[in-house]
Amino acid sequence: MSDEIHSAKITPAWIALDWGTSHLRGWAMSAERDVLAEAASDAGMGRIAQGDFEAALLDLVSGWELPSNVPVIACGMVGARQGWKEAPYRKVPCPPLAGPLTSVLTNDPRLGVAIVPGLSQDRPPDVMRGEETQIAGFLSLDPDFDGVICLPGSHTKWVRVSAGEIVSFQTAMTGELYAAISDHTVLRHSVTTEDWNDDAFRSAVSDAISRPESLSTRLFSIRAEGLSRSLDPGTARARLSGLLIGAELAATRAHWLGMQVALIGTKTICDAYDKALEAQGVRAMRTKGEAMSLAGLSEALKISGGDPS
Amino acid sequence: MSDEIHSAKITPAWIALDWGTSHLRGWAMSAERDVLAEAASDAGMGRIAQGDFEAALLDLVSGWELPSNVPVIACGMVGARQGWKEAPYRKVPCPPLAGPLTSVLTNDPRLGVAIVPGLSQDRPPDVMRGEETQIAGFLSLDPDFDGVICLPGSHTKWVRVSAGEIVSFQTAMTGELYAAISDHTVLRHSVTTEDWNDDAFRSAVSDAISRPESLSTRLFSIRAEGLSRSLDPGTARARLSGLLIGAELAATRAHWLGMQVALIGTKTICDAYDKALEAQGVRAMRTKGEAMSLAGLSEALKISGGDPS
Repeated sequence: MSDEIHSAKITPAWIALDWGTSHLRGWAMSAERDVLAEAASDAGMGRIAQGDFEAALLDLVSGWELPSNVPVIACGMVGARQGWKEAPYRKVPCPPLAGPLTSVLTNDPRLGVAIVPGLSQDRPPDVMRGEETQIAGFLSLDPDFDGVICLPGSHTKWVRVSAGEIVSFQTAMTGELYAAISDHTVLRHSVTTEDWNDDAFRSAVSDAISRPESLSTRLFSIRAEGLSRSLDPGTARARLSGLLIGAELAATRAHWLGMQVALIGTKTICDAYDKALEAQGVRAMRTKGEAMSLAGLSEALKISGGDPS
Repeated sequence: MSDEIHSAKITPAWIALDWGTSHLRGWAMSAERDVLAEAASDAGMGRIAQGDFEAALLDLVSGWELPSNVPVIACGMVGARQGWKEAPYRKVPCPPLAGPLTSVLTNDPRLGVAIVPGLSQDRPPDVMRGEETQIAGFLSLDPDFDGVICLPGSHTKWVRVSAGEIVSFQTAMTGELYAAISDHTVLRHSVTTEDWNDDAFRSAVSDAISRPESLSTRLFSIRAEGLSRSLDPGTARARLSGLLIGAELAATRAHWLGMQVALIGTKTICDAYDKALEAQGVRAMRTKGEAMSLAGLSEALKISGGDPS
């Protein structure tokens, strides 16, 4: 089907969707699991009304030629209670992906939508939606992986994987804390740049790991040092990031210490976690978030019964 | 002059001002340091342009009859670089208050404005503006106090006081962190109330003190527990507050352990710190923030040379 890339309109064999709180990304896929085209919009689950999901999807794929009942496999917050249709959590320990997916009735007969369920944990209480699909993708490429997978983001996940199952996991709100602090506290006057000071980052990680209790006082010292000395914004930004990631590594030490660690995510944020872990003697495997999502959604297609291949 | 309370217009002998980032509060004072009237506006330093301070002050006191060159004694962020006029920091160790104040030239000849300088510390870098005046008020009433004064707020200060001097101090961004997290992260769905669960607060303080490194993971568990079980909003709010205050107590332990502790602030926030400290075996003295500000501004009036008594 690859010659269709050059035809007037792409005809996907199936559609892969990563539908999060703030974004919607879609890929027109061939039966051979090649990406024919991609599309993105800001119609995230948190930004549209509950009745508008089908319209948002049709808008996203309006450039493609849809065959009848084309499989559309979606993961992420689209399956939350406030999403298109709730895909009830599966409880760990369990494989990252298992049937049945949650089917969604649509008005448009061309769409055959199914949502991948998220995972929950009873003790301590925790949840994920979307990361389970990336982990399924990762395990489809490395089935014997035994260790911990870290998926950095707004809500960073640390996921213990063994024998093809997710054993347990823990979430740290590090990315959201970074955004809330740098946008909505006095540190907004200090973190005013995209500059970066690698030494300041490593030293802040190390400070936070060795004295994790001092986070709230060290945060203000970024501001105070900016007032009383010349603390450049790139140093301030790297120090804020290092303090928060360092605190997270202190909190999750039991998960990564002495373990094989894999990072799944975008380059910039994985770079930061990689440096922080490296300073603790951990050499992490690196994989790309988008590639893992696509591999996972391909796995989900197989168990959906809609596999067109 | 107290009969003026009942006259058509109050004539202050001097005016006391607490001029912070988000608020402006003023008191018409008698020569005997009694409060004749008070006024407040939202013309905080961070909300008005640099040329608008005199107009904001005249607006605040427009209901009062101003004698010529009435002393106006101000403390707080009004003395910051971005304020009305910079009142350069004095360096600790030093008494909380010492002359000269920073005089401000005004267009209106009825105003004789002077600003109390803030304090700075070199190692570790830290700053305060406004709290030094409350501490000066506290020491005017209890000159022999030897211990640590905690002033809870957006930027909570822990101030070591001995022999009438501020020896050192440390700031924790606890109040601002609470606001940023409860307004600008996923916890905004959990902390939706003014309800309060005292047991959840005490237990979160204790958790945070014993394992301060786990803040970022415990924060997300408030959300996860709200999703997977019935965690009521009053419990969520008290737990968030307890985790942050507990982390602050862990960070500042060297300041309060085995010390006499005094709290200066508003009732609600001092109640929370009082309970948290009590659980650590510390019985804090309680004083009211506004009364300490007024007592401190009265002390500042004396050294301003504008004392009308």
